[in-house]
Formats: sequence, C-alpha cells, structure tokens
Amino acid sequence: MDIFARLLSQAGERPPKVLAIANAADRDVLSAVQRAVANGIAIPLFSGDPTAIRALAGSLDFDTSPFEILPAETPEEAAFLAVRAVADGRADALMKGLVSTSALLKAVLSKEDGLRGPGLLSHLACFVLPALDRPIFLTDAAINIAPDLEQKTLIIENAVHFLHGLGFQEPVVGVLAAVEKVNPAMQATLDAEALVRRQQEGRITGCVVGGPYALDNALFTSLAKLKGMDDPLAGRADLLLAPTIEAGNVLYKAMALLASGKSAGLVIGARAPIVLTSRADSDETKLHAIALALAGDLS
Amino acid sequence: MDIFARLLSQAGERPPKVLAIANAADRDVLSAVQRAVANGIAIPLFSGDPTAIRALAGSLDFDTSPFEILPAETPEEAAFLAVRAVADGRADALMKGLVSTSALLKAVLSKEDGLRGPGLLSHLACFVLPALDRPIFLTDAAINIAPDLEQKTLIIENAVHFLHGLGFQEPVVGVLAAVEKVNPAMQATLDAEALVRRQQEGRITGCVVGGPYALDNALFTSLAKLKGMDDPLAGRADLLLAPTIEAGNVLYKAMALLASGKSAGLVIGARAPIVLTSRADSDETKLHAIALALAGDLS
Repeated sequence: MDIFARLLSQAGERPPKVLAIANAADRDVLSAVQRAVANGIAIPLFSGDPTAIRALAGSLDFDTSPFEILPAETPEEAAFLAVRAVADGRADALMKGLVSTSALLKAVLSKEDGLRGPGLLSHLACFVLPALDRPIFLTDAAINIAPDLEQKTLIIENAVHFLHGLGFQEPVVGVLAAVEKVNPAMQATLDAEALVRRQQEGRITGCVVGGPYALDNALFTSLAKLKGMDDPLAGRADLLLAPTIEAGNVLYKAMALLASGKSAGLVIGARAPIVLTSRADSDETKLHAIALALAGDLS
Repeated sequence: MDIFARLLSQAGERPPKVLAIANAADRDVLSAVQRAVANGIAIPLFSGDPTAIRALAGSLDFDTSPFEILPAETPEEAAFLAVRAVADGRADALMKGLVSTSALLKAVLSKEDGLRGPGLLSHLACFVLPALDRPIFLTDAAINIAPDLEQKTLIIENAVHFLHGLGFQEPVVGVLAAVEKVNPAMQATLDAEALVRRQQEGRITGCVVGGPYALDNALFTSLAKLKGMDDPLAGRADLLLAPTIEAGNVLYKAMALLASGKSAGLVIGARAPIVLTSRADSDETKLHAIALALAGDLS
C-alpha cells in the first residue's frame, strides 16, 4: 500500500478533519473537495459567495447543504475568514480556492489574525514513484528562492516536524547538490557539509542529515555503492533538500510529470498545513494533497 | 523510431567513424566500445597498455586485433595520445577510459596539443522518455557551475551547433527557471529574459529562445495553455537550458533514473565530442552516448 493509499485509509478510521477553503467558488477546487468528502477525510468549511459556491457545487452533484459557508464579498475577505477559522481552531487545514496565492499568503502571514508559525513558510511535496521503493519527500520547490544556511535549517525543521506527524520517527534528510563531494566552488556542497555538522552537533534534531548528494546517490544505495561511497546514509533519503528553488522546482516537476508517479504538495511552517493545488494538477493529485494536509498529527 | 534508434540506423548507412579511447583498459568501457563496433558505428583507436587492453578485451570475446593501440605507460600519457589523435584528424571523437575526468580534460584543454574550441566546454544530454513525444536535450548538467549570461550564451551556442549537426535546423531553446514570469528576485528569470532578447536581436542565431519557463510549460503545450500562456514557443522546447549545475544535474538524474527513458550525455564545445560515461550508466546508455558523439555532421 503506498503512502497516499495509507493516508486515505487511516483517515477513514477516525473522524474527518475540517478543511477551510478560501473563496471556494472554483470548479476544480470543489471537485477535489467533493472527492475528499466522499473519501471520508474532510469536512469542508467554505468561505466566499454562498450562491456561487452552491451553484457550482450543484453542477457537480456535490451536496454542500451539510456544510457551513462563511459569506465573503471579495477573495481577500474570503481568505481572511478562512485563515481566521483555522486560527480559531474551527478548521484543521487551509485550502486555496479562487484567490491569488499572494492574497492567501498575505492573510496567512498577517500578524494579528494569521497563521504565522515560529519559523518560515516552506513547500513540501511527497511522491510515490514506480522507480522507488519508498515515498520520497522534497523541499523546497516553490517558496524560498535561494535559502541560506539558516533558512535551510528552518526548511528542514518544518519538514521534519511534518514528517513526525505522519509517523516518520527519524527521517533521513538528503541534502542535494550536483556532486557528492564538498567543493568550495559549489555553495550547495558547503551548505550540505554545514547542515550535516549541525545535525551531528544536535542543532538540528529529530532526523539524520546526510550529504552533499547528487540525486542518484541520495535515492539509491546501489548507485551510492557503485560510486564507492561508504556513507551509511547515502541512497537512503526520505526527504530531499533542494539547494535552490530552481533545482527543487525542476525536480518536483520532473517527478510529477515524467516519472509516472503520484504526488502531492503543501505549504508548511504555518500553524496549519496549506493546500495550494494548481490547475495543472490531476484530480488524484488534489485529493492526495488534501489527504496529506489532514493526515498528520501536528499537535 | 526514437532518436537513438535513428542515430544507430543512420550510422549503419555510412562508414563508421573513429573513436579514440583514452586508456582503454576498463571492462565497462571496452564492453561499450564492443557494442558500438558490433553496431557498425565505430572504429576504435585505443591508447594505453596494449597487453592489458588485449587481455581485458579477450575476456569479453572482443577481438581487438583489427584496431590500433597507441602504447602509453600512464593514464596521463594515454589521455595525451588519444587527444592528439583527434587533434591530428585521425579520430572523430574522444572517449574517456581508465583516466580521471580532470586528467582527460587537462589534455583536452592543453593549449598546444589540445582540442580547445572557440568557446567553453559544456555538457549536453539527450533523453527519450515515454512521457514525451520528442527527444529532449538538456544543458548543462555537469560542467559549468553557475554560468553567467555570457557563459549561458556560449552554452546555448555549443548545444545549437551540435544539434544542427544532428539535423535540428532551428531548435527551440527553453530557458528554465522555477516560474514562467520574470521576477527580479530570481536571477534565472532575468537571464532568461536577456537570452530571449539576444536571440531576437540576432546575437544568438540558429535557434529560437523562449523563457523563462518552469519545466511543465517548457515541455508540454497543454500545460502552458492551462496556465494561460500565449507564448508560441511555450511547451515546445527541444533543448532545455538549466539555470545552474544543481538544477541541471537533478533534472538529468531524475530523467535518467526515474522516468523510464533512454539517455546519453556528452561533453561538447571542444573540437570533437567527448564521451564521459559513468559506471552507473547502463550498457545501452553508453552505446547511445557513443552513437550521439559519432552521429553528427560537425564539420
């Protein structure tokens, strides 16, 4: 059973969690929420124009009458109401509807009513690929552009905290670069060396950190051995840390579009996970992202 | 028929070309050369220890008696002799044997006897993937670490020149970033904008350049349309330009290892293509790399 099937199955064994959807009058979003409701994992709490939401839902044969709609006149107001519902503990996770990512994140980061956590926001994706014998997580493919060492530390901490909530007790973090040897001309390798040291010194906890790795020797022990690496973490990464948003993004998209797998992505680091699916995502991907957001024990 | 099958088939219709192999006493390298000979695409010109080469070849049932061996006592001398054979016109391409990449490239870049071209060396890879309806080329996944705008221009020129030799008359170059909009905080997008302008102004020729693109809207017109892009080049890239070696390398390895495809990589920009296969490459990948190196009309 792959991790997404397991998340969906586990969710069925406990009460569904509440998902606040900011400005929900979007056909693709409602269709994804409909699937999550049918799978028994989510109770939606909508914000937006009630008439528009009910009309669109009706066209999908999605009966929204059991669910609350927080009326809002603008996307910004809808974002604010959905964020406040999460902040007030009325919802467990947030999902983007027909509102720009920047407007949603503005509400999330609002100092008074937002969901700002202690660190920074980051993107976390999960993949199940035929070529891999385990689920693989990737951070950060979408938010932090060129993170420095401090930001990389926070990005790892966000992801490790989330993975703990999913039941990964001590995930292996593989710090990616283009090569597996430290090279002073390649900042990614210097950062990897420093992150490994921070974990060894107890400044990064709850995981083990290895690297620098090229992708092959982060994912496959056989390929790490072929290169003569004796690092016991080589080839065993659960979580890949990308050196830059460009490296993370091309890897995310290569795995999502070219590797015949299943994927899901979230924004983490706020006080609740945030589902930001894209129009290009399949229905299944959207369902997986909701499942991932609602699966964890994030207390 | 995919591009690798076509290259192998085209090569069978004309005389084989000569491949100089630097310090050839390596079982994997000899095995790849044996396949290239059996496919009728290569005449090897070995350098190294004749006794060791003949013994290893014998253990593979590879009859090397028709082929010349340039005797050399050290890997460095073998690299020098193989490079000089190419420089003298006795060989059409160079292949790395049991010699370090740095020693081989040192011989290649030697001012007096080397193969230095007018620009810089760069890495070019070719992929055939089930998810894509055309071959896709990628540069630079292995040599230039953080190329600036001038270096990116030269990297494009190297690849476009090589693609012309393969019969691509006006390849579409997709300049990769994490997003498809120019963002001053993301150098990759600024470089993409500048490269597009250089091509439009005639300072980059023989191709059309588009970008910035995220990988999805570089490769798939359907996904570019879904994002509302009206750029006629979006989704049509033949050649992907990676912003950094890290982005190129993770993309290269994701496509080679996770996307169930066929791949081949070369070093270009010298006066002849250079095959640098890795131990981790399959026999088929090594054969494809030799085919790619010998396929082009690179006069």
